[in-house]
Amino acid sequence: MALTDDQQAEIEAARAATAATRRPTVAALEAMLFAAIPVLDHGFVRVIDYMGDDAAVVQAARVSYGRGTRKVSEDAGLIRYLMRHRHTTPFEMAEIKYHVKLPIFVARQWIRHRTANVNEYSARYSILDREFYIPEPEHLAAQSAANRQGRGEILDGAEAADVLDLLRDDAARCFDDYFSMLNERPDGSPLRPERQGLARELARMNLTLNTYTQWYWKTDLHNLLGFLSLRADAHAQYEIRAYAEAMLTTVAAWVPQTLAAFRDYRLDAATFSGPMLTVLKRMLAGEAVPQSGSGLSKREWGEMMAALGREG
Amino acid sequence: MALTDDQQAEIEAARAATAATRRPTVAALEAMLFAAIPVLDHGFVRVIDYMGDDAAVVQAARVSYGRGTRKVSEDAGLIRYLMRHRHTTPFEMAEIKYHVKLPIFVARQWIRHRTANVNEYSARYSILDREFYIPEPEHLAAQSAANRQGRGEILDGAEAADVLDLLRDDAARCFDDYFSMLNERPDGSPLRPERQGLARELARMNLTLNTYTQWYWKTDLHNLLGFLSLRADAHAQYEIRAYAEAMLTTVAAWVPQTLAAFRDYRLDAATFSGPMLTVLKRMLAGEAVPQSGSGLSKREWGEMMAALGREG
Amino acid sequence: MALTDDQQAEIEAARAATAATRRPTVAALEAMLFAAIPVLDHGFVRVIDYMGDDAAVVQAARVSYGRGTRKVSEDAGLIRYLMRHRHTTPFEMAEIKYHVKLPIFVARQWIRHRTANVNEYSARYSILDREFYIPEPEHLAAQSAANRQGRGEILDGAEAADVLDLLRDDAARCFDDYFSMLNERPDGSPLRPERQGLARELARMNLTLNTYTQWYWKTDLHNLLGFLSLRADAHAQYEIRAYAEAMLTTVAAWVPQTLAAFRDYRLDAATFSGPMLTVLKRMLAGEAVPQSGSGLSKREWGEMMAALGREG
Amino acid sequence: MALTDDQQAEIEAARAATAATRRPTVAALEAMLFAAIPVLDHGFVRVIDYMGDDAAVVQAARVSYGRGTRKVSEDAGLIRYLMRHRHTTPFEMAEIKYHVKLPIFVARQWIRHRTANVNEYSARYSILDREFYIPEPEHLAAQSAANRQGRGEILDGAEAADVLDLLRDDAARCFDDYFSMLNERPDGSPLRPERQGLARELARMNLTLNTYTQWYWKTDLHNLLGFLSLRADAHAQYEIRAYAEAMLTTVAAWVPQTLAAFRDYRLDAATFSGPMLTVLKRMLAGEAVPQSGSGLSKREWGEMMAALGREG
Repeated sequence: MALTDDQQAEIEAARAATAATRRPTVAALEAMLFAAIPVLDHGFVRVIDYMGDDAAVVQAARVSYGRGTRKVSEDAGLIRYLMRHRHTTPFEMAEIKYHVKLPIFVARQWIRHRTANVNEYSARYSILDREFYIPEPEHLAAQSAANRQGRGEILDGAEAADVLDLLRDDAARCFDDYFSMLNERPDGSPLRPERQGLARELARMNLTLNTYTQWYWKTDLHNLLGFLSLRADAHAQYEIRAYAEAMLTTVAAWVPQTLAAFRDYRLDAATFSGPMLTVLKRMLAGEAVPQSGSGLSKREWGEMMAALGREG
Repeated sequence: MALTDDQQAEIEAARAATAATRRPTVAALEAMLFAAIPVLDHGFVRVIDYMGDDAAVVQAARVSYGRGTRKVSEDAGLIRYLMRHRHTTPFEMAEIKYHVKLPIFVARQWIRHRTANVNEYSARYSILDREFYIPEPEHLAAQSAANRQGRGEILDGAEAADVLDLLRDDAARCFDDYFSMLNERPDGSPLRPERQGLARELARMNLTLNTYTQWYWKTDLHNLLGFLSLRADAHAQYEIRAYAEAMLTTVAAWVPQTLAAFRDYRLDAATFSGPMLTVLKRMLAGEAVPQSGSGLSKREWGEMMAALGREG
Repeated sequence: MALTDDQQAEIEAARAATAATRRPTVAALEAMLFAAIPVLDHGFVRVIDYMGDDAAVVQAARVSYGRGTRKVSEDAGLIRYLMRHRHTTPFEMAEIKYHVKLPIFVARQWIRHRTANVNEYSARYSILDREFYIPEPEHLAAQSAANRQGRGEILDGAEAADVLDLLRDDAARCFDDYFSMLNERPDGSPLRPERQGLARELARMNLTLNTYTQWYWKTDLHNLLGFLSLRADAHAQYEIRAYAEAMLTTVAAWVPQTLAAFRDYRLDAATFSGPMLTVLKRMLAGEAVPQSGSGLSKREWGEMMAALGREG
Repeated sequence: MALTDDQQAEIEAARAATAATRRPTVAALEAMLFAAIPVLDHGFVRVIDYMGDDAAVVQAARVSYGRGTRKVSEDAGLIRYLMRHRHTTPFEMAEIKYHVKLPIFVARQWIRHRTANVNEYSARYSILDREFYIPEPEHLAAQSAANRQGRGEILDGAEAADVLDLLRDDAARCFDDYFSMLNERPDGSPLRPERQGLARELARMNLTLNTYTQWYWKTDLHNLLGFLSLRADAHAQYEIRAYAEAMLTTVAAWVPQTLAAFRDYRLDAATFSGPMLTVLKRMLAGEAVPQSGSGLSKREWGEMMAALGREG
């Protein structure tokens, strides 16, 4: 991870300052506040601010005057009920803000989640850092043969080594040429005093998609869970999943009851279509249903058997 | 305002509890937290939670690692720049949550602001309180002759008295019949033990639009300012404007620099169309431009003169 | 249903005019265009415009240059795949616009779906029609004992008759007093020439929540399906479900492949939580699992058994 | 522009097919439908579908039953009124869908407009074309000295030539190495049969930000105008402005009355802050107000004078 000493000092200063508040406060999340959780080779996620907690979800669902005097178990039960029946608006009443450093190709997937607030570091205005994502060898996978949108086996040594060389060399050359076109040295002085330097908004087009960018990203708990259900999923690309998993640790600290309900009813759940339910009823009645007599396509059959932990 | 003793006690209990936090904290808003600001005859607005402050706007605009060490005047300058040039995303990085009690006809205007989170008290599930909005005599205005969407003169005594009688009697009768259809007494016991009581989701249709409802409403600072620019405006209906004005006092406590910029560049600003700018340039060149020679319609001319503080 | 002769003539005139277009066109939906489908006692839904069809979903998923030359069966397969895996963005590429007349209490539920465009008839500006929803006797149900948010048995004769009397009398009186406060006769002449008439934006507060309003409502196919999955559901209040069912007939005409996939994977589907899947695997292995040993609450157990078509 | 013969044939086939519709139809936009408008060196914008016209805006504002019988001039007047007073919802009632080919760095600016529907060509799933944006020499500008977020003078010959060489060489090498990592030849055969080929979702990270991507992008007229007011503005980066200008030609064909109002009240308009209005009133009263006595910062003063077409 690439925090400079100055950045680390800024973070420590922010962590050292505390104030009294009447707002709901979550000790486990306060402990994490501002600290960078490393992700990939140069990225991070850090929580910048939050609003609400598990009780805030309950309080909004009840439109309460105060924090209430109900038992924790009653609140957990209500949260489970809301999650199970997709009563989503109370989960919109808690909010969290992250600072994220991430490769541009990951940022392009991430930004597709529209119900969030974003401020990205501007490469029109500023100059980016010389940092690009180079995968670990165990993440260098071949194109999947079965799934056009996925990874297959790990590349073997020689091919992997060639790939890493290309990624490293191309990113480095493109970045160095970016500085050359800007006519900048790393210390900010001009490379060639007689030159003007290309506008930043143009020079950035020479960077490769594994260059790191950073942004502030803020969303509500409902939309965060929607993000995580897609991006912490096994079908998500590994690189964005790494961010989703780091964020899950912050959600666990922040709203443990909501996260438990989310795991049960969303992450670990399976949805069966009408035709799948018909097959299921036949199976529960003791019938040995073969795929060919199920009315399901091979693909759907395979997905159903996988959800039931059975051989296809 | 209609807070029961229990509700008041719940609020006081919430106000009494404090905790330490590393998050940005605004003392002036903390002082207001949870307390109900009365609006209209039975309504209120109270701040339930908030995230961020003026500095959070600046921090997001800069994608900073810490709170920074710039001077307050630099931050204020950046906030003014962002507001002037409609760089809106940094203002989305602060968030506020209100609990509001309001007449249903006001709620119907309010909900048109879609970029917000809402949990409304459910009259499918629960029974509403016997509270309805009856205007003060000074707000009982005639239909405007000039503006089909506005109010004219205050109604005179006899007409006003009749209106108030009708409003009071109709709301009271409809509410009492709501209880009668529910087969409920105020204490929750059945009115006629042999009856079943109409479903709540149906009985509510008998209520008048001045009956009070309540909700939790959460939005970001940018969208809050959008709400206020429309609803604190002189063209807004008085009843929703009363809420907007109460909310402005909370914004003043919360983000004073942002509010000052918002007043200058939005509330107190005027936009001139291309043709109006042409007229303005002629006027500044010393020409006495009459409406008839201005190329503007009478209505546009009137709006322009009003913005310039001139007789139309 | 309350269409005046003038309104009916306007609709017929619009239906009579045709033009040539290069856009995708759906004959079955064209046949319905502009015609009002009656809903409840005075309401309706009518399709005003639409964009796209089943093929437009496919075309967007493929980012195609033309309409393509694939077989219909391939397109249907892709639509089923997209629906099953919740790849929702291609369904956002088709759009539909409705004109709806509906009671205000239904409008208040409906408007909670925020990802839509709305223009409502303005009672600040105009005067509403004298129409209010009075349920058919078979829809006058008691409060459910089992579900605080639902209906139970149909009310018996005497109680039902009393309820209908109250609903009718209160709505009529409130509406007549609305006109009285406006100082208007139905023909638009003043009731009492010496009076000013209360502003429309105020007088409307005297109306009951079963008064009809109307709006133009436009949304994309993905968000329409989200609306229908909640509002065509058995747990939805009957009155809004009646609208959802009328809209389903328009969706069937418009995008039959999408609707078939939606029925299989959403309307007729069931989601089982992680703990439910564990129980299901035990049952499929031949174990007789009792609720008490299932790890599920009675309520969850009941929901699971219902989805499997079994006695709880 | 890079349309293959197959793509051009698909477009021509789509243009050749017409059908009868009852929907509002705009002949001038029909004439453009599906045809690609070239933008930059390899990009394009083409209209794929549309819903509504100027009259649809009016019809929604009036919540009409039919197309109405008012005069064109009345409709234009209402559109101007709605635009002037920012009554935005009627403009949401018309919708348009584009197919756009654009460099990735432009796509990253564009996607920040969240109220739109997007389907992008997937480089996880498919392989991109070998096309990258290389600016024309007259668009190769130096970093602006006055505005950190803008361009200054055109680069002179030698510096420009070096920049173009770097952009061309880096993009070409990165693209060729992308194919090499994928282990693909342009004809789809493997480069080295013994190799597996890197997963597409990984290989794409080697591409430079000037590589072209493409997407379907759909939005409503209100949000389209919001996009255009920012992106057709002189402060927008040239490359995205080129797209905005191409889109303005489609808006001119589609909704000419709306576009005329938009030009007057938005594109050609200027907003003066409260303090600026004070200065303006003094100037109109004949006072020679210097910047130093204006209460405005130098920057604000300069902006105000520019809007008034005066020397700063």
